[in-house]
Amino acid sequence: MTPPPALPPLLDLTGIAVFALSGALLAAKMRQTIVSVVFFALVTGVGGGSVRDLLIDAPVFWVRDPWVAPVILMIAFITWFTPSRWWEGKMLDWADAVGLAVYSVLGTAKALAYGVAPVPAILMGVITGCVGGIIRDVLAGRPSILMRPELYVTAAALSATMCALGTLAGLPLFTVWAIAAVAGFCLRGAALIWNIELPAYSRDP
Amino acid sequence: MTPPPALPPLLDLTGIAVFALSGALLAAKMRQTIVSVVFFALVTGVGGGSVRDLLIDAPVFWVRDPWVAPVILMIAFITWFTPSRWWEGKMLDWADAVGLAVYSVLGTAKALAYGVAPVPAILMGVITGCVGGIIRDVLAGRPSILMRPELYVTAAALSATMCALGTLAGLPLFTVWAIAAVAGFCLRGAALIWNIELPAYSRDP
Amino acid sequence: MTPPPALPPLLDLTGIAVFALSGALLAAKMRQTIVSVVFFALVTGVGGGSVRDLLIDAPVFWVRDPWVAPVILMIAFITWFTPSRWWEGKMLDWADAVGLAVYSVLGTAKALAYGVAPVPAILMGVITGCVGGIIRDVLAGRPSILMRPELYVTAAALSATMCALGTLAGLPLFTVWAIAAVAGFCLRGAALIWNIELPAYSRDP
Repeated sequence: MTPPPALPPLLDLTGIAVFALSGALLAAKMRQTIVSVVFFALVTGVGGGSVRDLLIDAPVFWVRDPWVAPVILMIAFITWFTPSRWWEGKMLDWADAVGLAVYSVLGTAKALAYGVAPVPAILMGVITGCVGGIIRDVLAGRPSILMRPELYVTAAALSATMCALGTLAGLPLFTVWAIAAVAGFCLRGAALIWNIELPAYSRDP
Repeated sequence: MTPPPALPPLLDLTGIAVFALSGALLAAKMRQTIVSVVFFALVTGVGGGSVRDLLIDAPVFWVRDPWVAPVILMIAFITWFTPSRWWEGKMLDWADAVGLAVYSVLGTAKALAYGVAPVPAILMGVITGCVGGIIRDVLAGRPSILMRPELYVTAAALSATMCALGTLAGLPLFTVWAIAAVAGFCLRGAALIWNIELPAYSRDP
Repeated sequence: MTPPPALPPLLDLTGIAVFALSGALLAAKMRQTIVSVVFFALVTGVGGGSVRDLLIDAPVFWVRDPWVAPVILMIAFITWFTPSRWWEGKMLDWADAVGLAVYSVLGTAKALAYGVAPVPAILMGVITGCVGGIIRDVLAGRPSILMRPELYVTAAALSATMCALGTLAGLPLFTVWAIAAVAGFCLRGAALIWNIELPAYSRDP
């Protein structure tokens, strides 16, 4: 096994923080308690990465990390003590879009570093980006992002695929990660602005 | 630890493929997008086996396998590009029944090979057979197979128990697996044909 | 890594049994079949501890244990064959409260023994205490304990935090565990008796 690339710690914590924020904001919007806000921040922030780490047999990234859990608690408390109009409008969707793209790239890169083959590595990236949000939606009892026609999982798949292809092509890793993340973010952003949707299954008469 | 028995690769891929098909068909019937079809095929195809591998501390079977992920993608695309009437009628239920029986046997056999004791090994078989479908149902927001009185989990339990007992009795492994899988499939098939149901709890007046 | 402390086996099995009972009773109250009763007993009894063990990279506690799975099956069959009025009234809630407090303490202690830092170790305790119940509620399709304002996850957090602080302070382990478990149980009990609730998010005008 090649050792995993040293991911920039600030980028890593930023990705976790924006994702945790999207979970915390959802809980606040549902007028939950501080405990639920913390739990939703945690699940959304680390859910996808935890599933990825379990599947690729890596130590789960946040369990022994001294920063991740405190950052998530901080995000939850900031959400709790601030008026939601600070974050109103499309804020939730855009924070989610950033987290989605960043996580998908980091997840694919980590899987590749652990020796996972390209196709499963791409799936690991999509899982990292989307599974936190899917668990969040299932816990909240609302239709999962998986079931909505908007371009969401697709953006994660774009970022993950570009990351895998660029890495295989031997391009400089940081460049690959940046371009792949921006591409997925742009696709998701375009979907948010113009309401782009994937076609639904329609082979039936 | 005894090394795990070499499972016939084609049987393994077939079990995964039919299970993935049942997930893909559900997503198509719900008129989802291609991305959802892929995700449902993946979750249903590998969900149960992944939970089993995590619990028995085995490397997750599909993550480093060169064939499983491509086969699942192929199943998803075949489902997407074909009219659902090709698969209409009871097709979905029967594909699910095959996957259920085959997975339960394979899961029990793998757990026993990893040195798990008989009772937990039987539970591992049931988990392998049923958990993919349970996650699929929870994601789809429909009542889980766990909550329906029809003989479903029971068929998995029959296959898993026969596999464990036959293995403990020292019978030839392939024979044990075949008989156990056929028995579970027949029980599930009988339930499909004659609508056999388990009794519900009724100790209350 | 310090070796994990030898948890008293009877306390461990008791915690699992009362939690499994709360799952089995829910399935019985929903007039499910014996198979569902077993599955709910299993998921509720070992769900939280399994997630904790996977996250801290410990062998999953019940998979190779000779007693846990049989005890859970026994609890499920006792529930099935007895009238529910034996367990009526607040029985379900109180069994759940005991399991919640005991599990949260055990989970935190185990995480600390595996070298997890205090903040994630507290989260592991909360996960151990609550995740079995959360999976149970999601499978049953009812609003999760996470979404209700009553003091539930909070009681787990109290037990887990007291356990971590007491352990860090170097107090005798069994005393710390007992006091932490009783504290969480009392808080949950007070919430049951006087319907104490956490305030909901209300920074919006």
